[in-house]
Amino acid sequence: MPELRLNLVTREWVIIATERAKRPMDFRNNIERPAPPPFLHSCPFCPGNEHKTPEELFRLSADGGWKIRVVSNKYPALSRTGERKRSVDGFRRSMTGVGLHEIIIESSLHNLSTAFMEPAHIQDVLRIYKGRFMEAHKDPRVEHVIIFKNQGEAAGTSIEHAHSQLVATPVMPVQVRDRVQAALHFFDDTGECMICSILRKEREEGVRVVTDTEHFLTFIPYAALSPFHTWIFPKRHSAAFSSITEDEIKDLAFHLKTLLLKFHYGLDNPDYNYVIRSSRPQDNLNEYCHWYFSIVPRITKTAGFELGSGMFINTSAPEDSAKFLRTARTE
Amino acid sequence: MPELRLNLVTREWVIIATERAKRPMDFRNNIERPAPPPFLHSCPFCPGNEHKTPEELFRLSADGGWKIRVVSNKYPALSRTGERKRSVDGFRRSMTGVGLHEIIIESSLHNLSTAFMEPAHIQDVLRIYKGRFMEAHKDPRVEHVIIFKNQGEAAGTSIEHAHSQLVATPVMPVQVRDRVQAALHFFDDTGECMICSILRKEREEGVRVVTDTEHFLTFIPYAALSPFHTWIFPKRHSAAFSSITEDEIKDLAFHLKTLLLKFHYGLDNPDYNYVIRSSRPQDNLNEYCHWYFSIVPRITKTAGFELGSGMFINTSAPEDSAKFLRTARTE
Repeated sequence: MPELRLNLVTREWVIIATERAKRPMDFRNNIERPAPPPFLHSCPFCPGNEHKTPEELFRLSADGGWKIRVVSNKYPALSRTGERKRSVDGFRRSMTGVGLHEIIIESSLHNLSTAFMEPAHIQDVLRIYKGRFMEAHKDPRVEHVIIFKNQGEAAGTSIEHAHSQLVATPVMPVQVRDRVQAALHFFDDTGECMICSILRKEREEGVRVVTDTEHFLTFIPYAALSPFHTWIFPKRHSAAFSSITEDEIKDLAFHLKTLLLKFHYGLDNPDYNYVIRSSRPQDNLNEYCHWYFSIVPRITKTAGFELGSGMFINTSAPEDSAKFLRTARTE
Repeated sequence: MPELRLNLVTREWVIIATERAKRPMDFRNNIERPAPPPFLHSCPFCPGNEHKTPEELFRLSADGGWKIRVVSNKYPALSRTGERKRSVDGFRRSMTGVGLHEIIIESSLHNLSTAFMEPAHIQDVLRIYKGRFMEAHKDPRVEHVIIFKNQGEAAGTSIEHAHSQLVATPVMPVQVRDRVQAALHFFDDTGECMICSILRKEREEGVRVVTDTEHFLTFIPYAALSPFHTWIFPKRHSAAFSSITEDEIKDLAFHLKTLLLKFHYGLDNPDYNYVIRSSRPQDNLNEYCHWYFSIVPRITKTAGFELGSGMFINTSAPEDSAKFLRTARTE
């Protein structure tokens, strides 16, 4: 019989439909992808096309060129200039769409995906995430910052050159506020951070763990929303990603590379999204929020049921997915 | 400059990114689809393959065969039999996955899509929705029922034969509960149903209206989540879909057919989801909830931003989408 599990973070029930479960290997991507060239003349993120991107906000130089660039998005969802102004008209509420929308071009090579970057390269990307995250929060119009990556068409991007994005919004998203409320209730009830509690429980049980090192734990959530939906939690309690230390950056780069290699070899290079969920730097010391990294391979599609109910149907038991990933090869 | 608009139903801000807006005609699907045959030997929903579907729950007969069938889903997300039981284990919460998962096979013809059904045929489908909805709510294990349709691969189905689904869950989804709360707050604040208020305002302003008749209003929401996301509201206040009258069924069939034909000709037959959002029959008389029909063509993809923030970026101004649909042809 299927099982419903409560996702503590979203407070939403997830249906684990084991009857319709596929074997983990059936989730393999099986889409033939031609190997991209190292440089592509038509790619706006390739060297030689720097003039095709708007203002450069940051550059990590390398011999005779650059290794990583941060630029404004050419088609920004929010305007970098202008004042934050709310309007009230009867029951209508609107606001000027100001904020930041940046692109982190992660490599000068067109054909280098995160999984195959050197660990030191991934660390550089993470350091730049940290820097841009802190910089964005200095803008007084900014209430919330998310850093995310869309890898592949199923994940919402048509540009294959490795890149990630930072969006700083002039409002706190309601979804985020609801999660903070859930974390606060948990803390009120137990005197402990929810994520710290989950971390302890997952390490005790072990069945959903993928990788466990000094500073991070990679595991499949008990109520994962979709097959191979994975979380990477820092072991040290901290609410804001910006508090990450150099040692932690090194360890996180290892976890990320390991997981993405397992996706690559075990699931045949699926498209995926990842996102860093974090409080603001100034809220780092709060006791109930805990930042983390969430990765979702885009293996299944959401449909009318998810749209209409907000609930998810996961056709893979989290324990099976974790077992599969534990043994998936990384080279 | 982009604009943020508050979606009153979800309480979430939507980014209307007019700078990256395409012209409505640029959203056209442009995917070549071969015309399907009237019957397909390999289709489990075609006549002759009735033995491939599990138990038949309802049948609308036609000369020498059937017009519409309702069957249990062969791969149900929830089990039709069994007891609803909750488990509490520390902070973990789980529940037996009991409930209903039915398929409404809308036609015996493999190649008949909703847009091209006779109005009387669509009315039959809606009457069967109503019947199954009421029947599902008689099950004491059921807390919430949604009826939805996935049309096309981008909308989450690989079966092209016209069908819709009913899922009855043993819990009230948190998303639905949050929307009820938002509606209740609005009622507390204004003494009016939120949807009735929106309906009046949309008719006054007219710029987002697509079709306006005696019983229903089809329009693009002020804070539509994605391009051509459309709502069909009944004008009469009623919380539950099951209270729909015969006259209203006829009018709703007209709205649905008109909208889907406009999608077909104006947007080149996009994949879409629709869902009926409704309270339970026994809650029909509450003053603050109001059932409605929501239709989402799957033209754009959700990506890391939506996943990580719960906010949506709509690249089409609702007023432009509505204007385009008002003039789109229906034959």
